Amino acid sequence: MQEITHQQIMIFFFSLALLIGLARIFGEMCKKIGQPSILGEIAAGIILGPTVFAYIAPDLQATLFPSSGPLYVTFEFIGMLAITLFMLIAGMEVDLKCLKKQAKPATIVGISSMVVPFIGGFALVYLFPKTFDTQEKTLVTALFMATALAISALPVITKILMDLKLIKTDLGVTIIAAAIFNDLTGWMIFAIVLSLMSDNSGGFPWETIVGIVVAGVLMLTVGRKIILALIPRVQAHASWPGGVMGFVLTGALLSAGVAEWIGVHGIFGSFLFGVALGDSPHLRHQTEEYMEKFISFILTPIFFATIGLKVNFLTHFDIFAVVILLVVGSVTKIFGSYIGAKFCRMSKRESWALAWGMNARGVMEIILAIIALEAGVINDTIFVAVVILALFTSMTSGALMKISLRRRSKTSAATSFGRGAFVADLSHQSPSHVIKDIVLGLKLDHQVQADLIQSIINREQLMSTGLEKGLAVPHCRTDLVKKPVLAIGIHKEGANFDCFDDGKAHIIALIITPLDDPESQLELISLLASHFSSKEEIEKAMQCHSKVDMHAILNAADELSEKKH
Amino acid sequence: MQEITHQQIMIFFFSLALLIGLARIFGEMCKKIGQPSILGEIAAGIILGPTVFAYIAPDLQATLFPSSGPLYVTFEFIGMLAITLFMLIAGMEVDLKCLKKQAKPATIVGISSMVVPFIGGFALVYLFPKTFDTQEKTLVTALFMATALAISALPVITKILMDLKLIKTDLGVTIIAAAIFNDLTGWMIFAIVLSLMSDNSGGFPWETIVGIVVAGVLMLTVGRKIILALIPRVQAHASWPGGVMGFVLTGALLSAGVAEWIGVHGIFGSFLFGVALGDSPHLRHQTEEYMEKFISFILTPIFFATIGLKVNFLTHFDIFAVVILLVVGSVTKIFGSYIGAKFCRMSKRESWALAWGMNARGVMEIILAIIALEAGVINDTIFVAVVILALFTSMTSGALMKISLRRRSKTSAATSFGRGAFVADLSHQSPSHVIKDIVLGLKLDHQVQADLIQSIINREQLMSTGLEKGLAVPHCRTDLVKKPVLAIGIHKEGANFDCFDDGKAHIIALIITPLDDPESQLELISLLASHFSSKEEIEKAMQCHSKVDMHAILNAADELSEKKH
Repeated sequence: MQEITHQQIMIFFFSLALLIGLARIFGEMCKKIGQPSILGEIAAGIILGPTVFAYIAPDLQATLFPSSGPLYVTFEFIGMLAITLFMLIAGMEVDLKCLKKQAKPATIVGISSMVVPFIGGFALVYLFPKTFDTQEKTLVTALFMATALAISALPVITKILMDLKLIKTDLGVTIIAAAIFNDLTGWMIFAIVLSLMSDNSGGFPWETIVGIVVAGVLMLTVGRKIILALIPRVQAHASWPGGVMGFVLTGALLSAGVAEWIGVHGIFGSFLFGVALGDSPHLRHQTEEYMEKFISFILTPIFFATIGLKVNFLTHFDIFAVVILLVVGSVTKIFGSYIGAKFCRMSKRESWALAWGMNARGVMEIILAIIALEAGVINDTIFVAVVILALFTSMTSGALMKISLRRRSKTSAATSFGRGAFVADLSHQSPSHVIKDIVLGLKLDHQVQADLIQSIINREQLMSTGLEKGLAVPHCRTDLVKKPVLAIGIHKEGANFDCFDDGKAHIIALIITPLDDPESQLELISLLASHFSSKEEIEKAMQCHSKVDMHAILNAADELSEKKH
Repeated sequence: MQEITHQQIMIFFFSLALLIGLARIFGEMCKKIGQPSILGEIAAGIILGPTVFAYIAPDLQATLFPSSGPLYVTFEFIGMLAITLFMLIAGMEVDLKCLKKQAKPATIVGISSMVVPFIGGFALVYLFPKTFDTQEKTLVTALFMATALAISALPVITKILMDLKLIKTDLGVTIIAAAIFNDLTGWMIFAIVLSLMSDNSGGFPWETIVGIVVAGVLMLTVGRKIILALIPRVQAHASWPGGVMGFVLTGALLSAGVAEWIGVHGIFGSFLFGVALGDSPHLRHQTEEYMEKFISFILTPIFFATIGLKVNFLTHFDIFAVVILLVVGSVTKIFGSYIGAKFCRMSKRESWALAWGMNARGVMEIILAIIALEAGVINDTIFVAVVILALFTSMTSGALMKISLRRRSKTSAATSFGRGAFVADLSHQSPSHVIKDIVLGLKLDHQVQADLIQSIINREQLMSTGLEKGLAVPHCRTDLVKKPVLAIGIHKEGANFDCFDDGKAHIIALIITPLDDPESQLELISLLASHFSSKEEIEKAMQCHSKVDMHAILNAADELSEKKH
């Protein structure tokens, strides 16, 4: 302990708390407005880093986030660990079986969506040497820009497809397969680019390249077989989920070490280990969850926040570089993907959707850029431009896909409830009274309330909306609301809703949906039926005292039910 | 990145992989033979540290686990983070409501089980100054030894009580409450001892002590109220479980920072934050799980392994110190607890059980000791002796409680199945045939097999053992086996077991239990009914090709169902 002072320990706790706290808060704020949380996480780092915090209070900033010494080193290592484990998770999302099944379209779209932006990125460096060339090794920089524009972001694409309920459709599987193809080849090329950069002997780094290829092939053949054979054994004989978690993390770290030994960045190792592991039928879904939550909600935000700590995003913001990169990056990627999709005889609508989807760069490109920055392949200005390209394409992809396919996002019970009301103490027995009591809890003018009450009661008289276990879902469609509204009331003794089992409803969930959104009603009914499907869940919900309590339950339940798909 | 070399990054991955991997493997091995996994985790560190590895290959050991420089510093910080978060989890286990309910016995047993060993530990230092005194501040060392012997280990005790199914009995709640009392006061005293040690002005550190008390009281009153009010709001508006996880970790780190600022170790802060958070009815059980798994299965083992890295357990092993500490520590603790329990009019049997339980020191004492070692309160020899005391008492407590109460551990489906067999391709329709096929899969001599078949078929003819969803549980009690045996067969088309719903059994689980263990039969039947309670689970189990596959499923299911209690 001699090397670490008491002061440093205190600062360590505070700065880590600041990083995690601010990154999470900003990340959540971005998510709330429908943007990727990584945007907020990087913003948190920008605020804590040289761009803002050091500008306002340079001394305090230098104390909390020093740029050398033990704390600096520790944060570097923790950031590296975070990104290594993030790539493990990203690798686990790669489904080799899916790639095999859709081999043809995946290869065609994969290649065409890579080749065009690859050429574009390569050309950029030679066309605008003043902006892009670092003057060190022009060829390497050009190859990097080519790869950076060619890559897609599997995690972002997966998330978008899940949100649009496309993940299991033909279109979804094709996009995923093409993105996997993109990822695997893109990272291989990048590994080679890096080894070209770090080699100072002047010769071509044959050894490293052969090492990469041999290690990659071994890992995905023999290695994969061994891993898949070991996992059920570990799960059978070790404690669960600790045994399998330990095995996976140890394996990922060892692979990262081997990758470094070969001469490429450790993340290639953990990524490949994740791919080899990915489609193990034995890796219980829940084991994955346990690792994923901690890594993606805690460790990864630390890494992205440290990005903002490293670079001054204001002084290195070059409007020309940003615009040219955005235009060339997006146009080449979208064009390449679109012609690939048309070649596979996809419809115009689907081809556009695929092109927008493939344009999402997200996390992957940022990781690529930070490694390139640290290796001296690009400078701070290009780094900032690449980060902006990555964020901008991730932010727009989902919305553009939605428009192309005329798709809508899934309805969320928590969001609808946010627009609604909570009534804790219903006492009347008849459904009509209960419905009235709940509607009066909504902040609406009298006439609207009266109309709503009438139409919900009319619907209820047609047939009771009582479901199993004590849940009732009176509902109506009306043009009085623009978005789905969910109002929930609790009835301790139970109202007479003719529920399947004992006839008494304890949770009464009023669902009011707009006329022009017919799907939302059914979605909300089935969400609620699944959230309150057991006696325990109903009883827990009945303990709610306030709107916040109920909101908390619905929000967690929404995310749980999303995972089941 | 200038300060970190490529070489160091590679070593970082390898040494972290070694630490996690070996700690997990040894931890699992200890668990297999019924010992606490922390024993194996420390052993892993001892093997990788100065005691063994440095003795065999000093250069390689110094490269992988350097004792200064960036890597050393990083592992120090990661270890500190691990233990800070472990204490958060430990704090969350403290149930203040439970303490309130059992206030009287908890206080009596709590005080008497602390005072006696406290005096014993204090006396030790003055009676054997050559062994125990560090010659720096005798009073502080004496106070530390007093506290170290007085403390109990809530996490270990909780685990033992869960295993013996005592956690919800009166006895269990009393033990837990007394241990909580012990924990809270013990750590408060230790915080004061530490501030005495670190104060070099010679005067009494009033400021720090007042700070500790004020912070503690504030945290458990106002702080607790604020935390409990914030959690449902975070869960309502942020993504789940990432929002609440981020909130909890940020809060714990901030509290640790404040504790360091007051002048005590950061773990007090995170522990108190955990206590304040502990009984939040809103913190979804699953959110806790997500944090707990990663922290206890990955981070904590790293910390315990680093303990072995710090101290040479062979050269600092002093048989006199070990024996005297074991005797004084155990005798005073057991005596103090026993008279406290008798005073509360507990039966002799229960008083003994309580005394054995309170004697478990485990993790808590080791954490205490490592902090004391680093603060210079004790030397390496006493450190080793304290670690051995902690491990030895944890290892024996469970067994001794079992004997006092004539209790048995819960039967585990996975362990019973380990003694049994797996038959993948049953084809006969009649129960008698199916039973015969499965029994023939067991490695037993012919006569025993014939006897077993006969008695299981007799039982089956009495009444069919077909349950819901396609599970059948033919069984018998016999003196032909000494321990429960579980044999499982898969029947693709389904055998005619008169199951509740469609009459066909696909999973046939044969349960053979010894005559002198009547409870195990019912336990196994209810475990299996819960493991295979849904159509999905049955179908997943039907995919099993080998005994290992089925073993993996049962092992994970056992641990999941244990958590539900």
